[in-house]
Amino acid sequence: MPYIIGIDIGGTKTSISLGSSQGKILAKEVFATGSLKTTLSQAKGVIRAFLSRYDKGLKRTKGIGISCAGPLDLKKGILYNPPNMPTWRNVPLKKIFAQSFNLPVALDNDANAAALAEKLFGAGKKVDNLFYYTVSTGIGGGLILNGEIYHGASFDAGEIGHTVIMPGGPKCGCGKRGCLEALASGTAIARMAREKAAKNSPILRLAGKRKDIDAGHVACAAEAGDRLAREIYARAAFYLAISVTNVIQVLNPEMIVIGGGVSKTGPLLFKPLIKSVRAFAWKRPYRSCKILPAKLKDKVGDLGAISLILKKS
Amino acid sequence: MPYIIGIDIGGTKTSISLGSSQGKILAKEVFATGSLKTTLSQAKGVIRAFLSRYDKGLKRTKGIGISCAGPLDLKKGILYNPPNMPTWRNVPLKKIFAQSFNLPVALDNDANAAALAEKLFGAGKKVDNLFYYTVSTGIGGGLILNGEIYHGASFDAGEIGHTVIMPGGPKCGCGKRGCLEALASGTAIARMAREKAAKNSPILRLAGKRKDIDAGHVACAAEAGDRLAREIYARAAFYLAISVTNVIQVLNPEMIVIGGGVSKTGPLLFKPLIKSVRAFAWKRPYRSCKILPAKLKDKVGDLGAISLILKKS
Repeated sequence: MPYIIGIDIGGTKTSISLGSSQGKILAKEVFATGSLKTTLSQAKGVIRAFLSRYDKGLKRTKGIGISCAGPLDLKKGILYNPPNMPTWRNVPLKKIFAQSFNLPVALDNDANAAALAEKLFGAGKKVDNLFYYTVSTGIGGGLILNGEIYHGASFDAGEIGHTVIMPGGPKCGCGKRGCLEALASGTAIARMAREKAAKNSPILRLAGKRKDIDAGHVACAAEAGDRLAREIYARAAFYLAISVTNVIQVLNPEMIVIGGGVSKTGPLLFKPLIKSVRAFAWKRPYRSCKILPAKLKDKVGDLGAISLILKKS
Repeated sequence: MPYIIGIDIGGTKTSISLGSSQGKILAKEVFATGSLKTTLSQAKGVIRAFLSRYDKGLKRTKGIGISCAGPLDLKKGILYNPPNMPTWRNVPLKKIFAQSFNLPVALDNDANAAALAEKLFGAGKKVDNLFYYTVSTGIGGGLILNGEIYHGASFDAGEIGHTVIMPGGPKCGCGKRGCLEALASGTAIARMAREKAAKNSPILRLAGKRKDIDAGHVACAAEAGDRLAREIYARAAFYLAISVTNVIQVLNPEMIVIGGGVSKTGPLLFKPLIKSVRAFAWKRPYRSCKILPAKLKDKVGDLGAISLILKKS
């Protein structure tokens, strides 16, 4: 059985895994993402340990997949200066790991990797054309066409978080106004709650201070029945529904998979979401498109990285 | 040299053409679209005449391409009940022409066919991935991926006219609100002018009566320097820019081609359009995407139909 190494580099933690081509994770180690030098050396140490424990010099390891938040140059295999990681500047990730281990290395952004993992091992197993949303602090996306990640002309396809949903709407972290991310992300949900929560609101009680309100508090209050919290989730779901509708109209995919922290609230998001998409999208493409929660949950980071080494059979 | 027959069925006229695989139109005949029976019999008569004049029984004709406004079932090759063509109900177009002429027949909607024609013979000759807009009375679209029409799960991909651009915006012909078609089509331009033109407006002078204002009058007034008319065009261009931005963010195409009657105004539409897309879209995918007017102009209908028979080389 061939092995694959996955490296999932996040702003706060880095996960190294060893998995099978069937998507089974056999070993995994997680550590805090530190300075570039420390993190690379830790990662290499873990990979060496995995290889000696599992591969045992038998060359059963097919390659190393690296999943990482951007900005990336996928052609050159370089990670530019990610926010909050000051020592990481123009890092030729692909080259570094290829040279250290003499193995094929594939690099992609975390949303594309997650999309492919959901296609190979998760909700999208039976389809070849899907769009994946990750709705979390930010919103990312990945487009799978014919079973493979579709990258586009400059490797920027799938950037659904910065499509404009409400011209002139709330300001987005990217500098524009009315992006999907500014309307339906965890950050947007928290912002709406901070703006609207009355003094005696359960949201505020859960958070303690207004400035500490996050999407988790809103989800918790909504599940406990708080009206404002439910309205805020429905609002986010409404904007997400417009985006999903537009993806259905333009791409007519077989499936839309929605993952990320905000999606974990289940029906709170999915019920109003699907109601609106049904109202907005044309019947035939709507009926041809399953809208499902992501399946891989906390494994999506590791399986995303591992997926990058697996080609369509 | 192989020949191809093109049939372009529109609500008011039907065009039959005979062209080469290089996109040269050698013969063409246009007649008013009438009842189903009359139109089919006229079309067959013209095709027979073309075949006897050009093919001369030498079997150099490769097939018949049919381009048609929807609603279509592309899998079954059926045209359902198009608006304003009451006698056309559930017409098995593909079967009818295949049986009559014993030739391969391909059917697609007019926007997809036009997209392919622009890729093969027009603005998109040098690229393999483009999105085509036709901005006319309505707004349609076609997606070309890897040099071919991308149809999606239920053959509904490319329906850009009914993506939602402004939630809660003006009512669209499709019943929804805030669709691109309700904001940037010729119909939308005329509606804005009817709503806003003052009594002494040059737009109104050109049209005669308020109810007779169409997009052509607005274009004419704008070209003559009328401020309101220019504002209306800029408004339509702004909404179109949001759609173009979103296509760039999600699909990262090499090219966006814009055709249809409204695009014929040139800079009036393209100048504000490109300015807004540059402001809204991310730099890298924006720079990778040429935004160009369609090149085939009045030939796009015939070449669209003909294109359907041409496979990627």
